[in-house]
Amino acid sequence: MTYCVGVLLDEGLVLASDSRTNAGVDNIATFRKMSIIEKTDKHVICLLSAGNLGLTQSALSLIAEWATGKEGRLNVNKAKTMYRVARIVGQALREVYEEDGESLQRHGTEFNATFILGGQIKGERPRLFHIYSAGNFIEATPETPFFQIGETKYGKPVFDRILKQSMPLAEAAKLVLISFDSTMRSNLSVGLPIDLFCYESDSLKVAHYRQMGEADGYLSGIRRQWGEGLKRVFIDIAPPDLDG
Amino acid sequence: MTYCVGVLLDEGLVLASDSRTNAGVDNIATFRKMSIIEKTDKHVICLLSAGNLGLTQSALSLIAEWATGKEGRLNVNKAKTMYRVARIVGQALREVYEEDGESLQRHGTEFNATFILGGQIKGERPRLFHIYSAGNFIEATPETPFFQIGETKYGKPVFDRILKQSMPLAEAAKLVLISFDSTMRSNLSVGLPIDLFCYESDSLKVAHYRQMGEADGYLSGIRRQWGEGLKRVFIDIAPPDLDG
Repeated sequence: MTYCVGVLLDEGLVLASDSRTNAGVDNIATFRKMSIIEKTDKHVICLLSAGNLGLTQSALSLIAEWATGKEGRLNVNKAKTMYRVARIVGQALREVYEEDGESLQRHGTEFNATFILGGQIKGERPRLFHIYSAGNFIEATPETPFFQIGETKYGKPVFDRILKQSMPLAEAAKLVLISFDSTMRSNLSVGLPIDLFCYESDSLKVAHYRQMGEADGYLSGIRRQWGEGLKRVFIDIAPPDLDG
Repeated sequence: MTYCVGVLLDEGLVLASDSRTNAGVDNIATFRKMSIIEKTDKHVICLLSAGNLGLTQSALSLIAEWATGKEGRLNVNKAKTMYRVARIVGQALREVYEEDGESLQRHGTEFNATFILGGQIKGERPRLFHIYSAGNFIEATPETPFFQIGETKYGKPVFDRILKQSMPLAEAAKLVLISFDSTMRSNLSVGLPIDLFCYESDSLKVAHYRQMGEADGYLSGIRRQWGEGLKRVFIDIAPPDLDG
């Protein structure tokens, strides 16, 4: 399983992914699920992936090949808007489907590959997209400024309750890490390290990236403080009258 | 969708269910998903149901018919242990499968009907079971003293963090209601009223039952206090250093 989150803020973007991949409980490995394409002062493009690792890696390889080729239409480095980048990612998924779809179907395996795409191209504001297996996509709006892919449910209530687009980057990063903590507690197939990339609007460079593993003090602190805090809130609420 | 929870405590049982049933978003109705069979001083048996309403209602009708019949083996009122009651519920599901399974399959509908069974029969301690569509079941243990059926994920993190088997009944009821609040916020197909039944060990009667709807003051209080409390805990945690 996987857990990835992208949040669109007034101040920029927060993007985070776990690193656990499993093909059954006896085959667990660590793979980065975050890819960043940076051209300082031109664009910063970040992709988070979930689903079948073979399919998402294949799509990323295609995108990388196209980025070195001459065909401008499929070259993310030549895209004028993030919308065009989303189209290229969708196109890559469709090519992978052409290649692998039928064979997967014969083996009873679902074609499951989704991406969160966030970033900024000079001349545009930062934008955030959720790209589906079919290559179609939706874009984040002020009403729904975040996307999750993979194991999304355990970590959703904290976003529903707390997230505001006006939050500072670091506050949103804290919220994202709390959401990861809730998810990792309830689903063993989501695991450390976490890749955390915070992008400041109009910086057009990768300034704030960190990887957080087992030994990360902030992560263990958040786990303790959030857990203890919830218990305090719980204790402070009066119990119900059982008879109504 | 549905959300039902059963918790096994040193002091007894807390059982709760929502009341929303939907067959697509344009066909939403209210159905109780909690059934209680009580014979004061002999036994108290509570069933919570999730899945296809036609199937669970059918199973409950069979159990009710069997309870008036002569065949002792299938009569829950004559069961000497909760294990035997669980077997009867399983048997009812299997009979419904015999009747409806093949036809559902032809229509591409999954045979989905699960129960949480909690209660006490004189001579035994209170026991809690999770009964699957196939009629097989598992029993709660001190390591895992709760079961959820239906839309289980949004409301699980609070159990993982806070639930203790040694909690007083009313505290566990509070936790169950917080779990319902998280679920209802994130999934519109789980809805009020909530049936809440708290069973005191060895009471062998239904003493504490209440139904909580829109106008319930405790429920709206918990929603506000939990939400505000989480925000306070969130604010009190320092944000991460974005650069590690």
